[in-house]
This record gives sequence, structure tokens and C-alpha cells, in this order.
Amino acid sequence: MGIDREVADALVKIVGIQHARSDEATLEAYGRDALQIGHAADLVLIPGTPAEIGSIARVCNEHRVPLIVRGAGTGYTGGAVPVRGGVVISMERFNRILEIDDENLLAVVQPNVITGDLQQAVEARGLFYPPDPASLKQSSIGGNVAECAGGPRAVKYGTTKRYVLALQAVLPTGEIIRTGSKSVKNVVGYDLTQLLVGSEGTLAIITEVTLRLVPKPAVQATLRATFSDVPRAVAAVSGLLADRVVPATIELIDDISLRAVEQRLGRPVAPAGTGAMLIIEVDGVPGAVEEEADRVATACVRAGATEVQRALTDAERSDIWEARRELSYALGALAPRKINHDLVVPRGRVPALFELIDRVRREYRLLIPAFGHAGDGNIHVNLMVNPEDEDEMRRARQAERELFEGVVRLEGSISGEHGIGFAKAAYLGLELSPDVIALMARVKYAFDPNGILNPGKLWDA
Amino acid sequence: MGIDREVADALVKIVGIQHARSDEATLEAYGRDALQIGHAADLVLIPGTPAEIGSIARVCNEHRVPLIVRGAGTGYTGGAVPVRGGVVISMERFNRILEIDDENLLAVVQPNVITGDLQQAVEARGLFYPPDPASLKQSSIGGNVAECAGGPRAVKYGTTKRYVLALQAVLPTGEIIRTGSKSVKNVVGYDLTQLLVGSEGTLAIITEVTLRLVPKPAVQATLRATFSDVPRAVAAVSGLLADRVVPATIELIDDISLRAVEQRLGRPVAPAGTGAMLIIEVDGVPGAVEEEADRVATACVRAGATEVQRALTDAERSDIWEARRELSYALGALAPRKINHDLVVPRGRVPALFELIDRVRREYRLLIPAFGHAGDGNIHVNLMVNPEDEDEMRRARQAERELFEGVVRLEGSISGEHGIGFAKAAYLGLELSPDVIALMARVKYAFDPNGILNPGKLWDA
Repeated sequence: MGIDREVADALVKIVGIQHARSDEATLEAYGRDALQIGHAADLVLIPGTPAEIGSIARVCNEHRVPLIVRGAGTGYTGGAVPVRGGVVISMERFNRILEIDDENLLAVVQPNVITGDLQQAVEARGLFYPPDPASLKQSSIGGNVAECAGGPRAVKYGTTKRYVLALQAVLPTGEIIRTGSKSVKNVVGYDLTQLLVGSEGTLAIITEVTLRLVPKPAVQATLRATFSDVPRAVAAVSGLLADRVVPATIELIDDISLRAVEQRLGRPVAPAGTGAMLIIEVDGVPGAVEEEADRVATACVRAGATEVQRALTDAERSDIWEARRELSYALGALAPRKINHDLVVPRGRVPALFELIDRVRREYRLLIPAFGHAGDGNIHVNLMVNPEDEDEMRRARQAERELFEGVVRLEGSISGEHGIGFAKAAYLGLELSPDVIALMARVKYAFDPNGILNPGKLWDA
Repeated sequence: MGIDREVADALVKIVGIQHARSDEATLEAYGRDALQIGHAADLVLIPGTPAEIGSIARVCNEHRVPLIVRGAGTGYTGGAVPVRGGVVISMERFNRILEIDDENLLAVVQPNVITGDLQQAVEARGLFYPPDPASLKQSSIGGNVAECAGGPRAVKYGTTKRYVLALQAVLPTGEIIRTGSKSVKNVVGYDLTQLLVGSEGTLAIITEVTLRLVPKPAVQATLRATFSDVPRAVAAVSGLLADRVVPATIELIDDISLRAVEQRLGRPVAPAGTGAMLIIEVDGVPGAVEEEADRVATACVRAGATEVQRALTDAERSDIWEARRELSYALGALAPRKINHDLVVPRGRVPALFELIDRVRREYRLLIPAFGHAGDGNIHVNLMVNPEDEDEMRRARQAERELFEGVVRLEGSISGEHGIGFAKAAYLGLELSPDVIALMARVKYAFDPNGILNPGKLWDA
């Protein structure tokens, strides 16, 4: 689109020339995030205060200039990039932990604090911030809040939304607001805090986050169970749930994914003939952990595990997790492009989800490694494709639609973690009714009457 | 106000004459809930299906007739009654548990299912629905969702909002919508489910609720600790939090409340000289419960408990809880009227909250028993008054404002459980900024453009 020169000058003046970027390379760089598709920015601003962001918003709102907020840029749905140009605000200067409050079990942070850094800081004080997206060493709390990030521990601890107590945010019309409070209960007015969590940067610009913390679990036990095939591994998960055990994590890795990891690491990560692996962690006070670890092992054996191993040292634990951690990189070697989805079904329907994935693999002749948070019914389904291969890309699009329709039929959702962004905007109507989409559009209007904030996301507006 | 005769006829026709009430006694009865103040209804309808409710909403919306939804009528802020007349919909026919799904750990219920009944039904199958408002034998799930009910177990398990996965609801403009899904993770579009939770019947009419369940804890331990005064009891709570123990409940009862209960029961509930009592429950797997119960007892002794007792039988457990259960009735005997508030502060600031309450007691010469969920910082503060005594009522109003201003200064909230309704509408601006209130009004407009649904609640609109 391009921005009017006078408007651009006014915007640059707000942050100061040293905090503005308009060179080609930067504009291009801010036009891509982890999705690797997007449109270049027309101007990148790096504000230092909420007041500056308020001023930027007012100018953009007055002149109808698209305004896009970027955190760490690790999202998979293009949430942090323009679709038709505009101003990108980089939150990089909002990078401080403002307060870790032991007495009230909470932390106040600026949005660009890296999630893993916050975790280390609170764990050093015996506290715990559970949400653990795979990107935690790169992704920021603000982005985690905007997308409602999940992660392996969600099965026991819930996702980001369970930990957000209060927000400071700037509206697209420039007002600086505070929602929620530092108390763990608060029922005064509408829950705007939870409405902003997962709103994908389309309602307001988050400038401060108050997070609830919990005590750090005293101990944990990590188990690895291998199975001859996915159905047996999934049966073990169902057995656990039926036995009413709630581990902190229940991660499942299928055979295609295991082979890819073994190739990357150059060593076997499971006995020969393994068709599926579970990584299960339980945590809490020692007595409980021992009891639950035993029940986990029993459930796995009962479901036909070929081997159940428990980590006895930190090194063994790290070894078990390595297979999971390296997964994303390992898959990258399988094909030029990975179309990465985060399908979710009601917890007991993971077997049906894997049947669906198998059928789609055969029907569309595609390589589709699958792994993820089996205890939540949330499976990462990766369509490995070569963008040069037109026929394969066509089959991938058909497969994608079939998967989305399938999870909706199973009463699940087309996204459990990554959100919609623009990558899945075309599929919103598969899951939500026209009345609900219209209502969401009216809610959007309540925040952003001119539709300047992150346009083209969630739906094409 | 009165409703136009033709409009009334059209409304009655929707539900059938046998499900409409317009006799004086019923109209008066539906003009009051647990707050005991309100305005009589002009017409009471008892619809049987969401489609009927949709038709009622369309007629009311077209003719600008106030529409108020009533569940069990146990709310303390007047949320279920008209403030200027209109149509009251009683949800009493929506009273069925539609599904308890063991495999997916969820339940689907109609809104007028009584919370305690649902708990019994799921516990019989080894599952658990934690939210436990004091009213659980009378209040309904729909009302619990509309107000985001809490209860003693919230300290470990969170409040109602943590358990609502999906809703069916009727918009004030008549559309029937579904939000959320049966999967525990879902980040597709704005989180309208959480926006409806706690919206106090002002955004939509809830017709079906899908609730997440958790495994029923295997065992529990109930402890009672007595102290010479409130500060020592509160110090024990702080000690517990500092020791990173998270009991399922931490209830505190102050001396005025204890005396009232003893009077009601005609027996001592604590050793002579007791100035405060804690009731603490821990639950989970046996090993963990033993360890945590020991740590609870140690923290209490360390803070100067005069006695720590652990229930060894169900009868003893019931005996300990009797003091808490009888509290509400017992306070009723202290004065003709109880102005019941649910103040909340960050968890570590309960000592400061009790200092505030003490100061207000002295300054305004009022009897103010206080008790509640100390682990959440959520304390029920009851101003016991005689409505005939004008001077006392004046002092009570001043005291109320001072308490509200105090908790906001402590970074807490004027309501942790009961909501605003019309009882606290005048105080909304103490906690929320004009920009936030204006934003909430725009969100309200997105749902209810003509302002027909539960008018006069949250703010005077």
C-alpha cells in the first residue's frame, strides 16, 4: 500500500528517528514470521512506552493505516505480519520482568520477555510458570498471550489463559486500559482479560502482563514407553485417563516422526520395530509422584508397551526429551516445506483422529508425521510437501480441508494452539457458524471501529 | 412499566398459556432473589426450548421490552430480577443432565441443573466438578456460569470459568449460537465462552453448558486450626503459601462469626478464647495428602495455633465443616439485615484487608463479621444492620465505600464471587476506568444493540 509521507513523518516523530526503520531489508524481514509468508511492512517502529504506542495508534486510526504488532515472530499462522502492508510495531524494547512477587505468587512482565527466561527466573525462587510452548526459548510472553500458547504441560496445568490475571493494553483508538487485577478472583464487569488472550493481536496491543504463578513441583518423574504401533500407544493414554491419572505431560510421537529424529540424531531413540512412543511426566510431592509413576508404567504395560523406561538421572531425562525437542528440526529434513497444523479433539477421541490421519495419508498419498499432546487430544499434524510439486500441493490442500472437516465432526477444533492468523482464515466457517462469526466481527468493531489493527487476520475483513 | 397487551399475547403464545404466569404473587416473587430487593416482573415465561427463547428474544427486542433470565435466584447482587419491570424467563424446565462423558471427562448439562446434583452424579462415576459455591444445594449451573461462581475449593481448583468448555446461548436478537467445543484446547476466534462466563445475564441467555471434569481426588484430609486472633491465623495462611503448599481449601472464620455460630448451634465449635479458626482441606493421592496434611499442621503450629485437629472420620469432618456451613444462617440472627460483600485482594494481602476491616469496624461502629476463602484473598465481609436505624444505615453506606476503596488500593477487586448486578453498579467506577467501562458498553452493544437483556445491571444503562 505505502504510507502517506506526512503520516509516516508524524509516526517516526513519536518514537524518534533512532527507533524507526524503513530500509528494504528490515521492511522485508518484518513481513515474515515462522509461517514464512506475508507482505512487507511499510514502516517499522520500535516504541518504548505505552504512551508512544497510544500516539501511534491514534495516528494510524485517524489515517486508516494498518497497524500490526510483532513480538518474537515465532507464530505459525502469520499473526505478526502484514497482509497488505502498513506499520509494524516491534515490541522488542518491552523486554523487562518488572516484578516477581513471592508473597502473592505472581509476576508482572513486559510483553517481550522470553517465556523461557521468565520460567528460569521464577523457578530460581521456587515458583513455576507452567505454559511451555515448544518455542519457549524464542517466543515471548506477549505473543504467548496473544495466541494463548499451549505446550506439553497443558494436560495438567492448562494453557496460557489460566495464568493471565491482568493486562495493560493500548486500544487501536489510542486509549491505554487495564483489565483484571492482581487478585486471583475478580468478577467485576466483562472478562476483557480473557477476551484479549488468544485474540491474535486484533483487539488491542498488550503492553504489560500480570501472571499467576504456582509453586514449583518438588519432584518429577519422566517415563518413556514404546509401542509397536500408534493405536496401542493411544490405548495407553486412554487407559491413563480411565485410571484417573493426570500426568503433567503426555506426549506422543508416531513412527514417521521417530524415523526422522533418528536420522537427525544419527542414533536410535527407541528399540527396533517401535511404531509409537509416549513421553510421560508426572510431578508433585514425592509420595504422589512415586505412586503416579507406577500407575503410568502399569497403564503402558497393560496397553502392550514393548518397553517402559524411567529416567533416573537428569541426563537420562534430557535424553528422553531430546527426541521430542529435535522433532521440529528433524521434520524439516523430510521435505522442502512443512504445513504445520495443531488439530484438537475431545481427549478420548485421539484414536479416531489417528484413523482420520491414516485415511488422509493413504487417500492423498502424502507424508504426514504426527505427534503432540495426546493427553489434551491436541496433535500436531504436518503435511510434508514440495511447493514446486503442483499436484502434491493440490493434494495437500484437499487433505488439509479433509482433516479440518474431520476434527469438527469429532467435536474438536481446527486449532488448539497456533490460532487462525491469515493461514487458516478461509477455514473459520468450517468450525464457527455465520452468526458467531458476525458476533465476533461486532466485538472486533467494539475495540477497533476502523479495523486498523492486524487486518486480514481471523477472517478477511 | 407494563407490557403492551398485544406483545404480551404474542409472548404467551410462544411458550403456551400453561407456561406463562401473570398473577400478582408470581410477578412479585420473580421480582426478588437472594438480595431481597428488586422490581416485580410484568410477565413470567417458562420456555422449554432454545427456539422458544429465541422467539421470545426477537419479540422483546423488536418491542424494546426488558428481558431478564432467572435461574435458581440465589445471587446476592440482584442479577436475576428486573429493575424496572419486563419479562422474566424462568429456566426451570432446562433441568436435565444431558451427558456425562467418562471417556472425554466432560458433562453436558442444561442450565437449571442444580450444582450439587451434578457433583453427586459425576462423583458416583469417579469424576469431579470442583466449583462449590456455598449455595450449591440451591444454585444452578447456569447461574454459576453467569456469575462465575467460586467457593472454598477455588484456591486449588479455580472458579467456574476454568471448567466451562462450550456454551449454547441465545442472543438478545434471537440467534442461537454455540461457542467453544468439547476439546480442552481451542483457540479459534475470540473466546466468547469466557466472555459469557461472569457476564451476569447481560449478553446472552445460556441454554446449554459443556463442562470439563477432573478425576475425583482419591482421598482428602480435613484439618481445623484455632488461633487466639485473626492476625495469627492469617500468618498461618501466609506460611502455607510461602511453604508452597496448595490445599484444596483454606477457609478462615473470625471471632464474631464463630460466636454467632456457637449461639446458633448451642455448643462451642472451638476452644474458649479462640479468636479465629482455619478449616483446611488437602486432597489427592494418599501419599501426597499425608505429606501435605503434615505440612499444613506444621505451618499452623509455627504461626501459633492453639490447637490443630485432624478429622479421622467422616463424622469428624462433617463436624468441622458444620461451623462453616451454618455461618450464613447464624449471621442472620445478629441483625435484621446482612449487607454481604465478597472483597478480594492479592493472596498475600489478607493481613492488610483485615486491618482495613478492623479500622472500618471501629470508625463506623458497625458489627462486621468476616470469613471466607483466605487462600484466594477472597473474604466475605458482612455489614450487619437494622434498616430501620437511619444513622446505622448511613454509616454502613460510608463503611461500604471505604471498604471498596480500600481493596482497590490493595490492588484487589470489589467482587470476587457475587458480581455487580445492580447492588454494586454505583461502585463500578471505583475499580474500572471510564475507558474500560466505555469499552464494556461497546461489547454489550455488540451482543445487545437495543439493551433489552437484563438492563440496569453492571452499570445504569
